[in-house]
Amino acid sequence: MVSKNQIKLITGLQQKKYRKQHKLFIAEGIKVVQELLNSNFELQELYTTQTVFQGVTTAKIIPVTDAELKKISALTNPNSCLGVFKMPETKQVTEKGLIVALDDVRDPGNLGTIIRLCDWFGIENLVCSEQSVDLYNPKVVQATMGSIARVNVVYTDLENYITNTRLPVFGTFMDGENVYTQKLPQEGIIVMGNEANGISDAIAQKVTQKIAIPRFGKVQETESLNVATATAILLSEFCRNLNGR
Amino acid sequence: MVSKNQIKLITGLQQKKYRKQHKLFIAEGIKVVQELLNSNFELQELYTTQTVFQGVTTAKIIPVTDAELKKISALTNPNSCLGVFKMPETKQVTEKGLIVALDDVRDPGNLGTIIRLCDWFGIENLVCSEQSVDLYNPKVVQATMGSIARVNVVYTDLENYITNTRLPVFGTFMDGENVYTQKLPQEGIIVMGNEANGISDAIAQKVTQKIAIPRFGKVQETESLNVATATAILLSEFCRNLNGR
Repeated sequence: MVSKNQIKLITGLQQKKYRKQHKLFIAEGIKVVQELLNSNFELQELYTTQTVFQGVTTAKIIPVTDAELKKISALTNPNSCLGVFKMPETKQVTEKGLIVALDDVRDPGNLGTIIRLCDWFGIENLVCSEQSVDLYNPKVVQATMGSIARVNVVYTDLENYITNTRLPVFGTFMDGENVYTQKLPQEGIIVMGNEANGISDAIAQKVTQKIAIPRFGKVQETESLNVATATAILLSEFCRNLNGR
Repeated sequence: MVSKNQIKLITGLQQKKYRKQHKLFIAEGIKVVQELLNSNFELQELYTTQTVFQGVTTAKIIPVTDAELKKISALTNPNSCLGVFKMPETKQVTEKGLIVALDDVRDPGNLGTIIRLCDWFGIENLVCSEQSVDLYNPKVVQATMGSIARVNVVYTDLENYITNTRLPVFGTFMDGENVYTQKLPQEGIIVMGNEANGISDAIAQKVTQKIAIPRFGKVQETESLNVATATAILLSEFCRNLNGR
């Protein structure tokens, strides 16, 4: 049974201001919820149409009907459960290994996909400019497919962060050096730009190595790559010479 | 001015059965519409809130208000124009170079992104199983960002196609060979599987070279990569030794 107040609270968490106020966020579906439960995220309540849930004390389980789940879900087709989790304290970025930095990436699907990519490629730190889409946006949480539990995502003044790092800073530009022919280090910051505008001028000035993913298509009109697929290609290039598991 | 019949026809084109019946599809936004106009796609009608449109005879332009555009648009936030285009005749696949084959990819965003990737990497042919999402689904057309005009997409019985090809057939599997250490040919078919189930058993049996994108993350739980980002990484690997432009 879900009360009107609970519905109001949970649907409110679809908005950043209420997430910030309550320090809570939602995650949906067994896969994502289970990954968060297996990690250090602290569960507040679990709304589920199922009876048993591995590793959750019954006191935190609130049985709901499909109709009730639909009322609190952010999904068009709700899955069988919705977890309300506490937002953890933000950790610091460790200046070690490869770090991905996002300069105002706005699309939740893109951020979620990039977090999933970081997880795959063993990137532990993702630094986002303050204007980037919020990590706890329900669409971001869903798109990470649980990888949100394993990547440290920090929001900060990106220009300031990039200015003060001791690591080399890579960014993709039309006139950059062919990434396939570069010797790429095992430490560095890879900056990815906004969907419409790319890397901002202020950040571009701090990039120490301009790189480019060459275009192989014959026609010049080909749009730029989507930011998530470009991240996939760059991480693959930076990591391909490391020892895979 | 848009009549009720026009609204009915155009919104009907959001469904595959009406697209098939009328042999028409819609594309929205200046960027996508302009790319289709610059290519071989034949425009039926262009609904636009603007007055002038490069390369379109005025007879085909139907001025509309923002409110009218909203009624016919498939987008939540309609752009300034919607073009109704004729579906071209399907071309044959030329057995040449690299070909991407999709084994029941269902998500429109993924198909659109993969078409955009094919365009970037100069892949001319994309073969889709008959259960794959329809190319002319409005969400696919939008996600291609115009690349739909430059990639030949063919729907066919994929098992039959793969059985009869003379080209090597690559597919990604957990137990495949590390793609980063393989010598990859300049000709071949790269099969990408369904979002939830990967490559089907029937197709898996026809794959001549099983490959894998190594996982670098420390934690084993990391989900598989999204099909579009996996395609990005594979196309990058197959193409990185070719001469980029």
